Amino acid sequence: MIVKKLTDAPAVELEAYQNVTKRVVLGAADGSGEIALRHFSLGPGGASPYHTHPFPHLVRIEAGTGVIVDPDGAEHPLQPGDYIYVPDNERHNLRNTGPDPFDFICIVPARGEQPACLTPADDDS
Amino acid sequence: MIVKKLTDAPAVELEAYQNVTKRVVLGAADGSGEIALRHFSLGPGGASPYHTHPFPHLVRIEAGTGVIVDPDGAEHPLQPGDYIYVPDNERHNLRNTGPDPFDFICIVPARGEQPACLTPADDDS
Repeated sequence: MIVKKLTDAPAVELEAYQNVTKRVVLGAADGSGEIALRHFSLGPGGASPYHTHPFPHLVRIEAGTGVIVDPDGAEHPLQPGDYIYVPDNERHNLRNTGPDPFDFICIVPARGEQPACLTPADDDS
Repeated sequence: MIVKKLTDAPAVELEAYQNVTKRVVLGAADGSGEIALRHFSLGPGGASPYHTHPFPHLVRIEAGTGVIVDPDGAEHPLQPGDYIYVPDNERHNLRNTGPDPFDFICIVPARGEQPACLTPADDDS
């Protein structure tokens, strides 16, 4: 088994995004071949693209305040302790609406975590 | 998409365990057919059985203090913010070592979350 802390996972600045830092906390490098657990920190004004992908998201909000935008463009407010399920191919994005970092963990099946896919065009967030 | 809070998920007392409450926060009932996210709260003295199962665990400690026991019987101390990966078929258990509830989320592939399997003999925790 592996026991680790968030800061044991390298932080990657997603420059093609808007003010977003990502860490793959538990993933293929840890032997987790089925599921990946990633941590995202969106700085003030930070957002993921409004996008779709053929895999689900399971999300838990960790810190800060933000919204998730649904396929109709409606914004759902989020706070720490909230959980979200986004099905495959459902359009969404997450956006920081507060002055502090907006942090969340985002769990995906392994096919959703591909190191080469860090641009909005081949998005994995 | 579904946005929910921990308390939106029914709490189940696992009486065959030792002082453990479980909530399936995101799972099949939410449309999540690949991955389940469960929340466990172990009261003082609470523990899961020392057991194995043919699926992995991805764990994040939420509150309290405890340990995870590895296949050699060694105890690894845990605190909020720690992450754990337990591979398929690796013996382990989690135990509360403090005076307060020891809470964690535990993510499994769908085959690891079967409602009928709530006894130690057919364990899913």
